[in-house]
Amino acid sequence: MNDVAFKSWVDVPAQSDFSIYNLPYGIFSSPQHSKRIGVAIGNEVLDLAKVQELGFLDEFKLAKGFFEAEFLNDFIALGKSLTSAIRQKLTQLLSKEETELVKHSKKVLLPQSEVKMHLPVKIGDYTDFYSSIEHATNVGTMFRDPENALLPNWRHLPVGYHGRASSIVISGTEIRRPWGQSKADDAEMPTFQPCRLLDFELEMAFVVGKSTQLGERITTSQAEEYIFGMVLFNDWSARDIQKWEYVPLGPFLAKSFASSISPWLVPLEALEPFRVSGPAQEPEVLDYLKSEGLKNYDIQLEVGLKPEGGEEKIISKSNFKYMYWNMCQQLAHHSVNGCNFNVGDMCASGTISGKEPSSYGSMLELTWRGTKPITMPDGTERRFIQDRDTLTLRGFAEKEGIRVGFGEVSGKILPAE
Amino acid sequence: MNDVAFKSWVDVPAQSDFSIYNLPYGIFSSPQHSKRIGVAIGNEVLDLAKVQELGFLDEFKLAKGFFEAEFLNDFIALGKSLTSAIRQKLTQLLSKEETELVKHSKKVLLPQSEVKMHLPVKIGDYTDFYSSIEHATNVGTMFRDPENALLPNWRHLPVGYHGRASSIVISGTEIRRPWGQSKADDAEMPTFQPCRLLDFELEMAFVVGKSTQLGERITTSQAEEYIFGMVLFNDWSARDIQKWEYVPLGPFLAKSFASSISPWLVPLEALEPFRVSGPAQEPEVLDYLKSEGLKNYDIQLEVGLKPEGGEEKIISKSNFKYMYWNMCQQLAHHSVNGCNFNVGDMCASGTISGKEPSSYGSMLELTWRGTKPITMPDGTERRFIQDRDTLTLRGFAEKEGIRVGFGEVSGKILPAE
Repeated sequence: MNDVAFKSWVDVPAQSDFSIYNLPYGIFSSPQHSKRIGVAIGNEVLDLAKVQELGFLDEFKLAKGFFEAEFLNDFIALGKSLTSAIRQKLTQLLSKEETELVKHSKKVLLPQSEVKMHLPVKIGDYTDFYSSIEHATNVGTMFRDPENALLPNWRHLPVGYHGRASSIVISGTEIRRPWGQSKADDAEMPTFQPCRLLDFELEMAFVVGKSTQLGERITTSQAEEYIFGMVLFNDWSARDIQKWEYVPLGPFLAKSFASSISPWLVPLEALEPFRVSGPAQEPEVLDYLKSEGLKNYDIQLEVGLKPEGGEEKIISKSNFKYMYWNMCQQLAHHSVNGCNFNVGDMCASGTISGKEPSSYGSMLELTWRGTKPITMPDGTERRFIQDRDTLTLRGFAEKEGIRVGFGEVSGKILPAE
Repeated sequence: MNDVAFKSWVDVPAQSDFSIYNLPYGIFSSPQHSKRIGVAIGNEVLDLAKVQELGFLDEFKLAKGFFEAEFLNDFIALGKSLTSAIRQKLTQLLSKEETELVKHSKKVLLPQSEVKMHLPVKIGDYTDFYSSIEHATNVGTMFRDPENALLPNWRHLPVGYHGRASSIVISGTEIRRPWGQSKADDAEMPTFQPCRLLDFELEMAFVVGKSTQLGERITTSQAEEYIFGMVLFNDWSARDIQKWEYVPLGPFLAKSFASSISPWLVPLEALEPFRVSGPAQEPEVLDYLKSEGLKNYDIQLEVGLKPEGGEEKIISKSNFKYMYWNMCQQLAHHSVNGCNFNVGDMCASGTISGKEPSSYGSMLELTWRGTKPITMPDGTERRFIQDRDTLTLRGFAEKEGIRVGFGEVSGKILPAE
């Protein structure tokens, strides 16, 4: 880890998520340029295509125009030894002591407000886990049996399921309220109507950074080599559709209308200072799921809900460290049957709820199935998300003056049509 | 439909799946050439790259080397008006009356036995349905309640779930018996061990031929425009792993270790003569799921199980026409929430079982959870699939002397390691 006093010649506001310790990667376009790889620093984007063009990355012997990419996949596929070296070089180039790149600052920096962000990776397969014990307990209590809220398998393996990759969209994309089938408890037949119980799920997701062959397993101790970095993830959920469709094969259309991610992919290296231990796991897990060392991360999370033209209310404050199952365990489990991975595959955490009701990661839990509505600053109530509401997830880690943040993932709900 | 007596100058054996009425597409390589698009005819492969090079496809104004492709996706993305015209041209070029292409037969034809087949499409997202009422009833009877074998939603919507695309492999790929967690009913704790109840699932899958945008719906009457063609699909299943892991979010590692598909993608046009009506749907489905006309297909299916060095036994004979939910309904349902599709996405039918026990599409059903073992020609018994067994699915449609087949999808089980 670098010295705390480490500073950049780029002006980074004190509370910026994008300090020189972060340097997350994203894909941006601007009126001048088509898609390319950038790095967030303060309120600016560092245009890596331009940095390469100016010769500052020559030592890495990358193809000409390498950073003029539609996705980060090829960059990530260079492998951690190379991407870490590039990260180190960028840290150096952006540091206050550096005197060369600063001369080209007007060429290589663009205000974030003037660029358009795109999906950072081409996602091959997407998996959603269910790894917060508080969330699983809350859902089990509401929908099944409070006495046996957790199903028998839950403490023995990180429950997960395959999700839809095509409908993962970038922050800012407006989300159309989905139509679907649902059935009221007292109705004889289902009806086809717009979703009435539209929800978010506060999640984070990791991006796979190294491919495997079919039949290969990744152990918990190897897993970090296979994780490139993380984003914020909103797993939009249509609760009425989900309730009717999900037996026996799991959620389907209740999820696949859209999931939203934040644009800046924070490399795992940037989260190194924020490692913490996870919750104790009882009973002891099977050997292939045992992990050593600090495998969780202390990442503060919050959820804001904003009616159109109104004031945003922070409706939840949670933390990634509450996760019962850590990412290494998730990946070890996911690959234990020989399932293969490709660079760019995405694995989401599942809803991240804490113990306190104020830390619950979905409307379902926050309003306890709508029985405890949230009062908004304008006096209106929310049981679930209403049309034209904007939902925003934010996240950052902070320690000893160092801040590494994820920015936000935001989405506005449009009426069904 | 063409005249029944329509013949090719290529020698096509009487019982060949690959008559001139079929002309399925695949990706092949040979000692001479890297991956390229071919069409199966009799026991030969027509090398479309070579056919184009010779100028026979000039009228379509395709880029040079267009058929030297790793996948069919770009070809399919040309759109049905163009791919149908190319199909018509190929039919003409291969017909007995044609006198030009035949002069180049040695250049454009290769024996199928001398080429290596590859995955025909780059699969973006993969969905598995559960659309055979006999299969769902059998499973519900065995695992839940014989009196209420079908869950309440089953007759109202085509139940489906997202699957793993990365582990879909081509016929001939050897399949390693997966490890995983399972728990015996009388055990207190789960164990980690190789799958003991390894199964196949007899399925077919369609390939999406036209992309949609997020928010777009495909109606049942539009759906055929969005389906390019079909393959045989073996949804390998680890029943012991599945039973323990699948609540509440559905099958995960029990499926994602591998699924196998047949190499030749049969275009929907080739199946036109074999349309039939589907089973009556009771109760009436919701409006968005109503479909008109003959939407099922009469495709005869069989399953062969062969011990190493032993004789194959046909353990099941089924038919695609048994499907309760047709492909148009599946696609209309899948997109009704606005979920978007990409060319190359794959949707599998779910296990295709008929009413008779001899038509069941999985070992689970054929041996009724292992209680009625199958006796093999060598006297050994099978409750589930054993190491070094080879499982093969075959399928073809036949009517009035016209045969359109899918070839086979085959996979041998290797011991866990």
